[in-house]
Amino acid sequence: MHILVTNDDGVTAPGLLALAQAMRALGEVTVLAPDHNWSASGHVKTMDRPLRVRETKLADGSSALTTDGAPSDCVALALLGIVPEKIDLVVSGINPNANIGHDVTYSGTVTAAMEAVISGVPGIAVSLDSKPGHGDLDYGPAAQVARQVAEKAAADGLPEGVLLNINVPCLPLDRIKGMQITRQGMRVYRDALDARKDPRGRPYYWIGGEFPTGIPEDGSDVGALAEDCVSITPLQLDLTAYKALESLREWKWEKD
Amino acid sequence: MHILVTNDDGVTAPGLLALAQAMRALGEVTVLAPDHNWSASGHVKTMDRPLRVRETKLADGSSALTTDGAPSDCVALALLGIVPEKIDLVVSGINPNANIGHDVTYSGTVTAAMEAVISGVPGIAVSLDSKPGHGDLDYGPAAQVARQVAEKAAADGLPEGVLLNINVPCLPLDRIKGMQITRQGMRVYRDALDARKDPRGRPYYWIGGEFPTGIPEDGSDVGALAEDCVSITPLQLDLTAYKALESLREWKWEKD
Repeated sequence: MHILVTNDDGVTAPGLLALAQAMRALGEVTVLAPDHNWSASGHVKTMDRPLRVRETKLADGSSALTTDGAPSDCVALALLGIVPEKIDLVVSGINPNANIGHDVTYSGTVTAAMEAVISGVPGIAVSLDSKPGHGDLDYGPAAQVARQVAEKAAADGLPEGVLLNINVPCLPLDRIKGMQITRQGMRVYRDALDARKDPRGRPYYWIGGEFPTGIPEDGSDVGALAEDCVSITPLQLDLTAYKALESLREWKWEKD
Repeated sequence: MHILVTNDDGVTAPGLLALAQAMRALGEVTVLAPDHNWSASGHVKTMDRPLRVRETKLADGSSALTTDGAPSDCVALALLGIVPEKIDLVVSGINPNANIGHDVTYSGTVTAAMEAVISGVPGIAVSLDSKPGHGDLDYGPAAQVARQVAEKAAADGLPEGVLLNINVPCLPLDRIKGMQITRQGMRVYRDALDARKDPRGRPYYWIGGEFPTGIPEDGSDVGALAEDCVSITPLQLDLTAYKALESLREWKWEKD
């Protein structure tokens, strides 16, 4: 098995190293990750400028590739030929913060896995549910979960067009209570505009505010983490709101 | 009614002007659009740098705001307070090319409407199905469709959490055959890596290839456009692959 490992925090992130090391137990690993942080960058296809790809090393001395493109560009570049061998699985992460609820369309970690699925390759996104201000993070439990899930995905396959979005509590392994297969839950964003003046008196604006919370409904990603459980959410790229089709079909369009 | 108009092609794009003019028939319009092109930029929340907002004018002399943020940032900025009045509807476009199939997660046009819906405001994305190399585009028919749909959305409301993704054939109004409420269809991407050498002999890579096609299935966005019909697809932000939940629940996680 040949596994592509990427992330959205950049090639020097410790979560990437932990994930790459975990995946090496399962097969050959190629790392191709951004050369800087792309958090909350969304699903990108860079077409207005060319991309560079260069060789680098992870902190354990192993070889990696890095690019000035986005996480989803990393996946596209690899699958389009930067990695000559066939890629069997794309694993993205480990993000230091959870990607739950509506985070999934913003998340570089998740959209990298989306890019894999669009190209017909299974994709898995892995995030750790740490809060800002947490000190050194232990990516060990999340890496262990990622290894097991990747092993199962390789053995059993994943449903067509489905990616897995894994979120792991930021707890030692013996305090994690179990694993739940969940639906996408409800994030509560608490963004606020922070208006400031620059040294020349001109206004600028931060999208600031508080770290998002969530509504811990049973069976959701938010709910699983609130119960100290690993959350695995299968996501699809068909966003059709099927329940809305019927009522909208009553609309008539008039060429007036 | 107060309508926010934005796009992903930038504040000088003719499709934005056509949309803003059409929306003025329905109520007060504020334009807040990016100061450069963000095509295929995905769903962005810019948090690592502050954003500028400045006043500008559209080609018809009307006032507009522009920012160095992404389309979804435009919506966030407006709803967080850059626009002091309550916004009742966000309309994004008119994009010169279709946003169908898997395009929806890449599309700045569509993700701007997503950002509105996440904030509890109805969102509509409007795109024209022109092919590259087409000459001057007539945004009139798409603007007419957008006005009618926005009027209906304002009168009847949209289902909770649902945005509308409108794609309009690039044809004169009298050659458009009708309107279909559709599901998200299948794009066929034909990306290819275009490897080149810079003047110093170092490699760089374009994500190139051919313009995407699609599979024109009945009832899909791709299918409606193939039949010279307007496509209106209701999209939701719950990406859960509900059909995959049961089979995944057979998985057991072992803390080995």
